[in-house]
This record gives sequence, C-alpha cells and structure tokens, in this order.
Amino acid sequence: MTEVEAKKPQESLQDRLAQVIELLHRHKLVEDLTHRQEGQHQQLVENLVHRQNLAELQRKLDELHPADIAHILEALPLDDRLTVWQLVKAERDGDILLEVSDAVRESLIADMDDHELLAAAKEMDADELADLAPELPRDVIHELMESLDAQQRERVRSVLSYEEDQVGALMDFEMVTIRDDVTLEVVLRYLRRLKELPGHTDKLFVVDYDGILKGVLPIKRLLVNDPDKQVAEVMATDPVSFHPDEDAYDAAQAFERYDLVSSPVVDKNGKLIGRLTIDEMVDLIREESENEVLNMAGLREEEDIFASVWKSVGNRWAWLATNLVTAFIASRVIGVFEGSIEKLVALAALMPIVAGIGGNSGNQTITMIVRAMALDQLGVGNTTRLLRKELGVALINGLVWGGVIGAVAYYLYDSWSLGLVMTGAMTLNLLLAALMGVLIPMTLARMGRDPAMGSSVMITAVTDSGGFFIFLGLATLFLL
Amino acid sequence: MTEVEAKKPQESLQDRLAQVIELLHRHKLVEDLTHRQEGQHQQLVENLVHRQNLAELQRKLDELHPADIAHILEALPLDDRLTVWQLVKAERDGDILLEVSDAVRESLIADMDDHELLAAAKEMDADELADLAPELPRDVIHELMESLDAQQRERVRSVLSYEEDQVGALMDFEMVTIRDDVTLEVVLRYLRRLKELPGHTDKLFVVDYDGILKGVLPIKRLLVNDPDKQVAEVMATDPVSFHPDEDAYDAAQAFERYDLVSSPVVDKNGKLIGRLTIDEMVDLIREESENEVLNMAGLREEEDIFASVWKSVGNRWAWLATNLVTAFIASRVIGVFEGSIEKLVALAALMPIVAGIGGNSGNQTITMIVRAMALDQLGVGNTTRLLRKELGVALINGLVWGGVIGAVAYYLYDSWSLGLVMTGAMTLNLLLAALMGVLIPMTLARMGRDPAMGSSVMITAVTDSGGFFIFLGLATLFLL
Repeated sequence: MTEVEAKKPQESLQDRLAQVIELLHRHKLVEDLTHRQEGQHQQLVENLVHRQNLAELQRKLDELHPADIAHILEALPLDDRLTVWQLVKAERDGDILLEVSDAVRESLIADMDDHELLAAAKEMDADELADLAPELPRDVIHELMESLDAQQRERVRSVLSYEEDQVGALMDFEMVTIRDDVTLEVVLRYLRRLKELPGHTDKLFVVDYDGILKGVLPIKRLLVNDPDKQVAEVMATDPVSFHPDEDAYDAAQAFERYDLVSSPVVDKNGKLIGRLTIDEMVDLIREESENEVLNMAGLREEEDIFASVWKSVGNRWAWLATNLVTAFIASRVIGVFEGSIEKLVALAALMPIVAGIGGNSGNQTITMIVRAMALDQLGVGNTTRLLRKELGVALINGLVWGGVIGAVAYYLYDSWSLGLVMTGAMTLNLLLAALMGVLIPMTLARMGRDPAMGSSVMITAVTDSGGFFIFLGLATLFLL
Repeated sequence: MTEVEAKKPQESLQDRLAQVIELLHRHKLVEDLTHRQEGQHQQLVENLVHRQNLAELQRKLDELHPADIAHILEALPLDDRLTVWQLVKAERDGDILLEVSDAVRESLIADMDDHELLAAAKEMDADELADLAPELPRDVIHELMESLDAQQRERVRSVLSYEEDQVGALMDFEMVTIRDDVTLEVVLRYLRRLKELPGHTDKLFVVDYDGILKGVLPIKRLLVNDPDKQVAEVMATDPVSFHPDEDAYDAAQAFERYDLVSSPVVDKNGKLIGRLTIDEMVDLIREESENEVLNMAGLREEEDIFASVWKSVGNRWAWLATNLVTAFIASRVIGVFEGSIEKLVALAALMPIVAGIGGNSGNQTITMIVRAMALDQLGVGNTTRLLRKELGVALINGLVWGGVIGAVAYYLYDSWSLGLVMTGAMTLNLLLAALMGVLIPMTLARMGRDPAMGSSVMITAVTDSGGFFIFLGLATLFLL
C-alpha cells in the first residue's frame, strides 16, 4: 500500500472519537424522528438535515489517518461502526482493514461484498494480503490469487506457509538490494530512479549475483561517505539477520535490544528472501504483553469490547469452567472437615483469609517468574537460588502477617491456640504458594507450554485447596 | 554515546548466558579449592587455572554487544553479577549502565567508586546523563555538571525538569537541522561533512533562523528527489510533533499508530528543542504493559529477580497488607452468619465457590475494560452500552454455571432449596462482579488514578465479601 505521511492531528484521539460519536448521535436522532413522524413535508426536511450530518461526518473521516479511523471503528458499537465504515472512501478500505484488530476486522469484512473485498485487497502487497487472507471468503481468495503475477502469488504462499509466531509470517518483500562492486554515487543515482523508497528503509541490502546476502549498507553511511567509495568498503558485513522459521518474538527482542529499524531475512543458504521492520515488531511486543495480561485473567483472546454477548461468553467460558472445577475441589476439601467446622464455627470465618493471602502472594511470585522467563533471564544455573529466595520471602511474610492475623484471631475468639494455628497455617500456605509459584511456570515451560497460560488460575487453585486443607487440618489436629 | 553496529550473534542469548554461568562456576570451584587447600604449590597451580578461566570469561564478554552484557548481568545473582561487572572493560561501563533495568543498575552503581562513575558518565549525551542522574551520588553529579559546557548543562537540566512520564524526559538532542531555502544537493554535501549521523535519523528537521520548526525532510525524499530541488519543495509540512509536557505514553501510541521512527519535539512557540526516537518508545511500550501485569498482580514495581529477600518483601508488602484487610472484612461478613453456618455446615463448604467464580469473572471484565481504556477506546458515549453487555454476559454465565453448581449442590446435600440458593447467589454475585468490573476502573480514571493499579485486588475484595454476604444472606432467609 502507498504510505501516507502522518500529519499533525489537530485534536487528541479522544476528542476526535467524541466528535464522531456526537455526529452519529445527531444522525440517529434524525432517523428516529423520520420514523416516528411520517408527515411528508416533515420527512423532507429531516432527510435534508440527515444528509447534512452524514456529509459532515464523511468530511471529518476523510481528514483522518487510516490508523485513526481504525481506532474509531474499534471504539464504536457494531451498528455505529458499520455506519462509519460505509462512509469511508472505498480506496481506503484496505489500509483500514490492515490496521484494525482481528476481532473488529471480522465484523467489517462480514459487512462487505466480494466485489468490495477484491477491490480493497488488490491494492495490497504480498505480505499484507497474506495477513488478511485467513479471514477472507474462499472464493475471494481464489479470484485474488488468480489476479496476481507469479512472483506475488509465490510470496503470498510463502508467507502463509509459516506459523503466526514465526519470522516468515511477519516479513515483507520491500527490500532495496544493491551490489557491492559499485560506488556510492551509483547507488545514489539508482535510488533516485526508484522514485519512492519503501517505508522503514534505514539500510540497503547488499547481495551477490545469486541473491546471497553479503552485508547491509546503512543509509547513514551512504549519506556521510565519499560518493567515490565502493559499497564493499562502506557496508557492514555480518549484520543481524533472521531465518524465516525463527521465533518472531525472539526477533522482536533482538530489535529492541539492538535498536534495529529493519533487518534482512535469509534462508538456510544465506539467500535474501525478505525483511523485518520495527513497526511489525512493535505490534508484536504490544500483542505479546497484552496476551500475557489476558491469559492471566482467563480471557482466551483479545475481545472486541462491543462483541455480542454470546461471543463474549464464548471467549470467557473455558477459564470459568476450569475455575469452577478447582473451586469445587476446594469446596470438597472443606467438606472433609465439616465435622470440625460444626464444632468450631470460627474456622469457617477464618479459612478464607488463609486461602486469599496465599493466592495473592502466589500470584506475585508467579508473575515475577513468568516475566523473567519471557525475558530469558532464567537459566539452568539459577533456579535453586531463586527458589530459596522466594521461600525466604514467604517465610518472613508468613510469620509477620500470619502473626498479625493470629493476634486478631486471638482477640476475636479469645483462644491463643486458634491464633497459633492461624499463624502456622498462613506460614505454611505462603511457603506452598512460593514453591508452586516457581515450579508451575517452570514445569509448563519444560513441557513446551506457555508459562503465562492459566498460571494464575492454577496457583489460585493450589493455594485455595492447599490453604483450606492446611488450616482445617491443623485445627482438627490441635484444637478439637 | 557512539553507536555499535550490532553483529549477528553466533549463539542464542540462552546459550551465551549458560556459557557465562559455566565459566563463573569453574572460577568459583577453583576459588573454593584454593581456600581449602593451603599448600603452597597447590595454590600456585590453582591461581593459574583461576586466572585462565577469568581471561576466557573476559574474552567472551568483549565479544558481546552492551545490550547482551546487560541481559547477562540481569540474569545473574548479585555476587556473580559483580564478578562479571568487574571484568567488563571500563570504556563500556556507560553503555551497559544505560541498558540494564533500574533495579540492577542500582546494584552496579553501588559497586563503582566516584572515579569510575565519572569516567563512565563523561562519555554520555545530555539525555543519557539525565537518565542516569537520579541514581548517581550527589558529589559525582556535581563534578559532572561542572565538566559540561553551558549548552550540555542546560540540556541535562531541561530533561531533568520533566516528570518521568512526560515527553521531555525521553527526548534526545541529536537532531540534524537544515534550512528550507537550500537545494537537496547542498543538504547532501552538508551531511557528508558531518561524518556521522545520529542513530534513527530517518528525517532531517527544517527550521528557520529563529529555530522554529517549519517541516521535516524524510531521508527517503532526500534520496529519491532531484538534487536541484529546494528543501521547501520536497519537505513535509505539518509533521507529527510533540510538546515536552505531553504524556509520553500518548506519544508512544502515536509512534505505533503512524509507524514513526523519529519525531520533533517543539516548545509552545513551535521552536524545535529535541526529538523522540522509536527505540525509547519501544522501551516505554514494553514498560507500560509490564507495569500493567505487575500492578494487577500486586507488585509495586519491576523487581530484580535476584534482589535480596528484604528488598522483595518491601516491594510486595503493600498489596499483601491491603489484601489482608479485605480478607479480614470478608471474614467478618462470614462471622455475621456464624449462626447460620452452625445450623447448616454445608454453607461453609459451598460459599468459597460463589466468591471464587465471582472473582474470576470480575477479573475478566476489569482486565478488558482496563485494556480498552489504555487504548483510549472508551468514551462518554459508550459506557452504558458496555455495562449492559457485561451484565448480559454475567446473567448468562450466572444462570448456566450457577445452574450446574446448583445441581451439584442438590446432588451432594440432597436439598433442592440449597441448590436454588446456590444458583441465585452465583447469578447475583456475577452481576455484582460485572457492575463493579466496569465501575471500578472508570471511577479510578475519573479520579485521575491509574485504572490498572490494584483493580484486581479491589474487584476480588468486592466479589469475596459480596459473594459471602449474598450467599449466606439468601441461605439465612430461605433455608433456616
């Protein structure tokens, strides 16, 4: 797609969103009126006002950057969203589709006919097409592939052949290549003939006649060096490069670590096949962190905030069901001790404290470990040390906070033995929380699973059932 | 600081970390031996091996990019970390200090004397100095400021005058400025005279004689246009720019939205005073998402995973204490109904299910709302609609899962009225969770607070106390 130079927005995003909503409301108000009052003259006037409002809204939208329209679409409920979508100029459809989140994209595509989809898709580059393809109707894809030339079709297929989390799925093909035996002057003249450079071109890729990557020529060096010098003298050999089957998240970390703007992607033989750019990596970093938040909270994936009630139920039911099972198990643990509770009903009031603090503390530990693992900070050598530290923290917290709550229990129920059991149970449950907070994510990782996935639900399950068992068990042993 | 062109790493980060740990262990093993066996000949040999190991480690470190050394330092426990830190060549100290996390930086600075700190800091640019300054000893800062020229000192002061989350605190001063009345040819010659361009220079800043920003000249346009053209013909007027007192996170979102690499920072009069670059924005995006995760889990800030036990206790105690208070309130709610539990002990076993599912569901809602707010998707116009949707989801979940668990309760305790109370309590608590899941973050935001901060603890407090109250209350009304 052609690039739009972003202009300075006149108002903040929030203001623009508010304006669009205001215009939409006026539009709907008029619509309501026309429906109610069917007098002919009335209707004519209303229609006029109606059309004026829509025209104003359209003018507003035409001024906005595609990314801003995407943002507004995401913030609107479905009916308003489609009203705005229909007002957007057809030639901008493609740009906007590429900017919106998957969930919202689905709702927009559902509103377009095949003809509109084809028109939008024809403006796209191979990597953009591949990005959109999974959500397009089968016959649209078929027609689209037919219309591409052989190279483009090959590229779309190649991008589609990689998993979503591999470098190959994120690469584009807009690299500018040069040879190493020409002078910088020649390179400068060659660039001028291109008329336009792809976005994020901070380096040119130096390849030999077989397309093997020999180095990169940073634009910075091209600009400051004597034009009579040869590319080979000035280029950086051995640049950071990636393979298409590498993990995309590792690539994003490398971009972050080495402050890269673009980077070559090469195949096994060192042949240049594409490039990665920082904008894709930023999206990935954002997505990855968000998935961590969503996963820990038990949402399956990013949710369109105005998704239908049924869709939301679908997105959330899996974790709720899991949680129901774990809560049921905890309930059964309590059930085992019903006799003890009957004899000493204070146990029922105190037991959620032990379980709750354990859950909170376990979540602190597990969050920290998951983060350290995501940042590759946990190696083989340092697990034991980490476990020892977490157990130390748990022991201190258990004795301090367990002591406080034990004193409170003594004060409330006038039983020093109940207070001691409370302190003991808190300490043991915090130690359990620390132990499992380290072991759960590590075991998940060793099994090749995402350690963030459901770790919060699991640790809470352990500290709930464990906490009830420890507290009620100790109470049964020592108090009854 | 001078930039290092990142080279392709030979091994993965994990491998490199493992190698360093391996060399450190060998080094320590030898040290232990030397301590134990004090025979003179023995000691000589050991010392030799010892020195060989350290030399090998140093060679290894010299090959690595500063960002990679920073990563290794972060992954090592304190004593190993300082061993490695002492082996790093002094001239690289500054680069590495700028790369490590705040928590680890503190531990490294504590290990350096004033002389070393001054040497490291003298290599830095004004913005980098300002970044480091808060952690340096007062007399080092004083001596450092003395050694700077007037402009540099002014710049450091200016960056330090902004809050951490303002654009001014993140800007640098490495902008290349040009006039609009010269030809591109002149610009190209000017750049060549500079010998080196600052990192992330994807555009030149066009200013008038008073330093007022008139536009930007993207390097891409400089390269593809006829050198005889004037800058004014080719430049982009009205580029995206920022004010130093703007919210840095808003700037980061703009970078993400408009795919920017660098952007001018101007004062109220439109005078160019600095620039923002994508690398700082990526760090910010990463940090912001991480803070969200940490805050929701009740960790005050990023924690050095090998921080001392006491530091960790300090980082975590605030949320644990808050949680203790909320757990205590929930416990008192149960205390009110102790009479009912005494009569029907099954209530004690079932009540954690109602509270737990409510907490899980409330956390799902609140996570989604907090995310939508962070992305600026929630405006005035759409709150009611969102609330209605969340209540709808809660009603369905309550009836379905509440029905399931009600049936289980009936099966276990053979009481259909207990089952009905269970279903009713689940439904009501899920509705409460949805209501508060929307209202809590919105109220926090209206009060000007960060909606992510502690929202998880608060929703859990509400669904715990509320869940116990609803369930035990209904049971007391209808079952006893």
